[in-house]
Amino acid sequence: MSAVEIPSEQWAQVVEKTGGPAIYKKIPVAKPGPDEVLINIKYSGVCHTDLHAMNGDWPLATKMPFVGGHEGAGVVVARGELVTDVEIGDYAGIKWLNGSCLNCTFCQQSDESLCPNPLLSGYTVDGSFQQYAIGKAAHVARIPKDCSLEAIAPILCAGLTVYKALKESGARPGQQVAIVGAGGGLGSLAIQYAKAMGLHVIAVDGGEEKGKMCHSLGAEDYIDFMQSKNVVQDVKKATADGYGPHAVLLLAVSEGPFQQASEYVRSRGTIVCVGLPAGAYLKAPVFDTVIRMITIRGSYVGNRQDTVEAIDFFRRGLVKAPYKVVGLSKLQEVFELMEEGKIAGRYVVDTSS
Amino acid sequence: MSAVEIPSEQWAQVVEKTGGPAIYKKIPVAKPGPDEVLINIKYSGVCHTDLHAMNGDWPLATKMPFVGGHEGAGVVVARGELVTDVEIGDYAGIKWLNGSCLNCTFCQQSDESLCPNPLLSGYTVDGSFQQYAIGKAAHVARIPKDCSLEAIAPILCAGLTVYKALKESGARPGQQVAIVGAGGGLGSLAIQYAKAMGLHVIAVDGGEEKGKMCHSLGAEDYIDFMQSKNVVQDVKKATADGYGPHAVLLLAVSEGPFQQASEYVRSRGTIVCVGLPAGAYLKAPVFDTVIRMITIRGSYVGNRQDTVEAIDFFRRGLVKAPYKVVGLSKLQEVFELMEEGKIAGRYVVDTSS
Amino acid sequence: MSAVEIPSEQWAQVVEKTGGPAIYKKIPVAKPGPDEVLINIKYSGVCHTDLHAMNGDWPLATKMPFVGGHEGAGVVVARGELVTDVEIGDYAGIKWLNGSCLNCTFCQQSDESLCPNPLLSGYTVDGSFQQYAIGKAAHVARIPKDCSLEAIAPILCAGLTVYKALKESGARPGQQVAIVGAGGGLGSLAIQYAKAMGLHVIAVDGGEEKGKMCHSLGAEDYIDFMQSKNVVQDVKKATADGYGPHAVLLLAVSEGPFQQASEYVRSRGTIVCVGLPAGAYLKAPVFDTVIRMITIRGSYVGNRQDTVEAIDFFRRGLVKAPYKVVGLSKLQEVFELMEEGKIAGRYVVDTSS
Amino acid sequence: MSAVEIPSEQWAQVVEKTGGPAIYKKIPVAKPGPDEVLINIKYSGVCHTDLHAMNGDWPLATKMPFVGGHEGAGVVVARGELVTDVEIGDYAGIKWLNGSCLNCTFCQQSDESLCPNPLLSGYTVDGSFQQYAIGKAAHVARIPKDCSLEAIAPILCAGLTVYKALKESGARPGQQVAIVGAGGGLGSLAIQYAKAMGLHVIAVDGGEEKGKMCHSLGAEDYIDFMQSKNVVQDVKKATADGYGPHAVLLLAVSEGPFQQASEYVRSRGTIVCVGLPAGAYLKAPVFDTVIRMITIRGSYVGNRQDTVEAIDFFRRGLVKAPYKVVGLSKLQEVFELMEEGKIAGRYVVDTSS
Repeated sequence: MSAVEIPSEQWAQVVEKTGGPAIYKKIPVAKPGPDEVLINIKYSGVCHTDLHAMNGDWPLATKMPFVGGHEGAGVVVARGELVTDVEIGDYAGIKWLNGSCLNCTFCQQSDESLCPNPLLSGYTVDGSFQQYAIGKAAHVARIPKDCSLEAIAPILCAGLTVYKALKESGARPGQQVAIVGAGGGLGSLAIQYAKAMGLHVIAVDGGEEKGKMCHSLGAEDYIDFMQSKNVVQDVKKATADGYGPHAVLLLAVSEGPFQQASEYVRSRGTIVCVGLPAGAYLKAPVFDTVIRMITIRGSYVGNRQDTVEAIDFFRRGLVKAPYKVVGLSKLQEVFELMEEGKIAGRYVVDTSS
Repeated sequence: MSAVEIPSEQWAQVVEKTGGPAIYKKIPVAKPGPDEVLINIKYSGVCHTDLHAMNGDWPLATKMPFVGGHEGAGVVVARGELVTDVEIGDYAGIKWLNGSCLNCTFCQQSDESLCPNPLLSGYTVDGSFQQYAIGKAAHVARIPKDCSLEAIAPILCAGLTVYKALKESGARPGQQVAIVGAGGGLGSLAIQYAKAMGLHVIAVDGGEEKGKMCHSLGAEDYIDFMQSKNVVQDVKKATADGYGPHAVLLLAVSEGPFQQASEYVRSRGTIVCVGLPAGAYLKAPVFDTVIRMITIRGSYVGNRQDTVEAIDFFRRGLVKAPYKVVGLSKLQEVFELMEEGKIAGRYVVDTSS
Repeated sequence: MSAVEIPSEQWAQVVEKTGGPAIYKKIPVAKPGPDEVLINIKYSGVCHTDLHAMNGDWPLATKMPFVGGHEGAGVVVARGELVTDVEIGDYAGIKWLNGSCLNCTFCQQSDESLCPNPLLSGYTVDGSFQQYAIGKAAHVARIPKDCSLEAIAPILCAGLTVYKALKESGARPGQQVAIVGAGGGLGSLAIQYAKAMGLHVIAVDGGEEKGKMCHSLGAEDYIDFMQSKNVVQDVKKATADGYGPHAVLLLAVSEGPFQQASEYVRSRGTIVCVGLPAGAYLKAPVFDTVIRMITIRGSYVGNRQDTVEAIDFFRRGLVKAPYKVVGLSKLQEVFELMEEGKIAGRYVVDTSS
Repeated sequence: MSAVEIPSEQWAQVVEKTGGPAIYKKIPVAKPGPDEVLINIKYSGVCHTDLHAMNGDWPLATKMPFVGGHEGAGVVVARGELVTDVEIGDYAGIKWLNGSCLNCTFCQQSDESLCPNPLLSGYTVDGSFQQYAIGKAAHVARIPKDCSLEAIAPILCAGLTVYKALKESGARPGQQVAIVGAGGGLGSLAIQYAKAMGLHVIAVDGGEEKGKMCHSLGAEDYIDFMQSKNVVQDVKKATADGYGPHAVLLLAVSEGPFQQASEYVRSRGTIVCVGLPAGAYLKAPVFDTVIRMITIRGSYVGNRQDTVEAIDFFRRGLVKAPYKVVGLSKLQEVFELMEEGKIAGRYVVDTSS
């Protein structure tokens, strides 16, 4: 099955009870089933979801104990006997959707993320905070050999998510999209993807520094909600004809910004909601939604084809995520910084230390 | 310009102050401008909007005094000098959208109802509760000669609205659509249009009698919210695979039914909101909307092409609206019945008496 | 793996050399691989493609010897260890696309029929002219228990193909589609699917008898090319506004009918080409194609989701294929009738005799 | 109606008989009808169509005598009494589609270029080779004040045409499009629009110099048909996965390149045909078109919304057309160069000399 030397034990970060902490320890290396591959993870991005998983914040239960992580990039070292289109030595990535049935009505229509029986990396199956991770061959991200494994890690979840949201927005090249939360981690990726897709970006966030960053990443306009006296008017003014942007990406849905978006989005426009704040609600006035024929749409993670495309934009140098590398052994410290809200950009853990 | 005898005076129902009443009196007949036609209205449907207009319920102001009515069917008796594609003697209809600029970005993209400068029949311009009404030639409904003018009147607003909503739902032939409020006036038309479009209908309403009517109009399933112990489960069970309908038409948006719809609509499905209850709000949980990639969309009235299509379904006998005819002079009595909630089906006024 | 008694030998029709004949003989029953199921075929439709396969008419080579057939309906009797969503005892069908990689860019986008490495039933893998046939679990058609296995057989290829073509035409409910070759086997199914999808059908074929049949199946108009002095004009006249049908289905592409279709299709309309005559060419004038913005599109077989939908229309009683049942042992005689052009409707073979 | 001084006579280039020549002479200035504007043309591009019109090459008859030209940019100096959304002093452009009925089924669906009763500038109505030209207010191009009137002229037909073709191709940002004839006038604009729309461009043309130009305009690959031993293979090799480009733009349809395109376009891909060579035919093998589900589509000129968008890309500096200015009086000389095939890039005539 493979000529590569695979150890029987490896280092991993294991959550053993709800609330954590993650414990750095040696555990056995798993063997891939007939339709799976084993990936020697080199780098893995750390996502807020990993913290939610450890803390048991969401209604859905994790496996327990579990290994978190769903932005893992590495090298294929073994494959099951049914796998023919992934080779030993290929670069591959573990993403949030580790596997799906591939045959329900959703999978059949390329909406694998809506499969009622998904395998979720670092949640319902062990993820990428270990040196050797299992992925369904049909779902592991194919990573071209000319990509840096550490730089691509955040693309596997954060990049894919905003790219998908931009596709779901229905905005066409030349149209305008407002990105709310443009200065954050998802936002900075969203600006770059939007620009590469030929969209005009109106960045919305707070503070001068974020404004500078947004402009440097390609946003044509920046609305600073800390300075603006009327965000709705200012966003509309940033569009050529004053009718507002064709689409709005809400990267952190909360009631105020959603309300504003429903006022400044162009008639016939689309508000795409991304992100999963606990217990939050959308609230929109019926009259305006109907009269202006507004669309409100939730967007989750991308499918396999979206993954190929999101990676291709990265490979061509059109999208870069700022990140900082630390050893896998320091994961708990990253979580602590995250809980304190002290992280700007993405942390990527190096599984070799 | 015309060989038809046009009187200088006519009977009309005029609202002279907010709150009404409508006064039946003689007023002058208007002359069409260069891009307008004059229609001898024979019949006009009475819509709840006419009551809203008289009562000043909505934020937008009406002209004052004004003649209401926006479901008027009649015969063209005069036309302006720029009109070349409507002939004297043609059947034509006055609809809610009396005119639009035809050149703003919305009109250019066939979304005339989103034009920022619309003329609204029976609201910002005089409507069809008179014997001779003016319409912009580009917007008057073309009615084929083999259609009954009294029977087609309700199609010009009610029919068009539900047909548009079904188009906006994105549901394809063979897919399932839940129609909430299926037993009402809009609902009974929606069932018939949906069926003619190859959709399966799950009717949702209250009471046995409504259920019989829904089935007789072509609904394959009926969920009686007065009997059901769990509407969400029952609607889902009515779909072949249990994943819920591909689309939901909410014909009278209010919080409870909307909440239910967001639970039973299929993942990737669309909830279309129609109707304009004063001060109502949509409220949806972010988590579910995102994870299940649900779309919520407002639908207003149809454009000119939608009108042609909605009328064609009627002309082919696929859609019938139950209605009752009374003289135009009795309009105020119809309004009173309406306010008392005593109307089932549509009233159509005959302008000759 | 299964409690059902599976014999080690079975009756089959085997083609042992190009040109045939098919030989009725006993061969071993195959065992399903880990992602496959074994179906006890009860009935199988006989398609022109089976004759092409035996005669080696097409550029692509068949396996040799091989068992033909790709419209097989039966009962699942065994499944591989990775199969979880098909149960022993389920009804299932073998269709043309026996399997695909499920992971190439085409499969990822639900275009499994464009997979560069397909398994084709009765062509590159053994098909349904045997009592026990193998299919990839992801691809076998799921047949509801309330369907007749003999009646559904022709839906698995003929029905699916025309349903897909109608979807590819882009025609919406209420629009008009011309079906060329409407009186043949594919055509009679196409009329029924089109009608169930809310389309108006203009049937085009030759002879009075075919006209009667087309009308009885739901066609609103029939153009008899043996009687018409001007097919182009007559088809256009059959449309309400005289601009021609929105779509044309060419069920047997040849130069004359294609040329006509490119003249009578509505501007912005679509001509869908189905069927694979050897060595045939489409030829269209550039000027007209450009000025009228015509689309010409090839349509092949449906994907898995199309299969579900095509079967659902059948299950609901909206589509019926006329067929005649003979024993599997008589297959060679069916081929001979087919070569002589003596078959009207579909032959279905019963594998029990 | 206007405070601007409008002369009663003006200089124009008039074609007085089929075959020409164009005669530079004084003619009266026309007065705009109620729904028209009068534009003081400053610059006008010269298109091959103008030569076809003079020579009577096409089946459709021109008015006679006539003033050619349909890429005219200037300043509005008068407007009819129904015009409210164009101001005196506005910049505006005359394009090929001077007017349409705005109410046929095609106009209602935003396909004004398919209107059965179009007014064509410089063909059925006088065009822009004069100092004062008439345009229907609904159709004149709105030109922002920060645009150069001479530089924008070629956008009004050449730019709009290729932009529309790219939209019709259905290619999404990140996908690949082959542009055949990329080194010509249309081609150089197409490369820039494609790039601004987020597409990868594979330029196809002949000669090293054209290759350099294509790369400098943003093409990622260049296939030189004068050097390539196998154009089909080379185009496919230029795509990441070797399956060929998602779309092909054929800017000068002829049989050889069309045949090649149908071989190298990706399965499910679209070949868009632009340009109107006299008497040319498309010819495609049925087998391949069907099996690979290829779409062939004609694309004509853009609609009003396309015009707004095409101009906006220009205004933002993303698209530049190389051009050379000469006096209107020299038009016949430009035609002669054109006939000799001696023109690279676009000629723009200055109406002041």
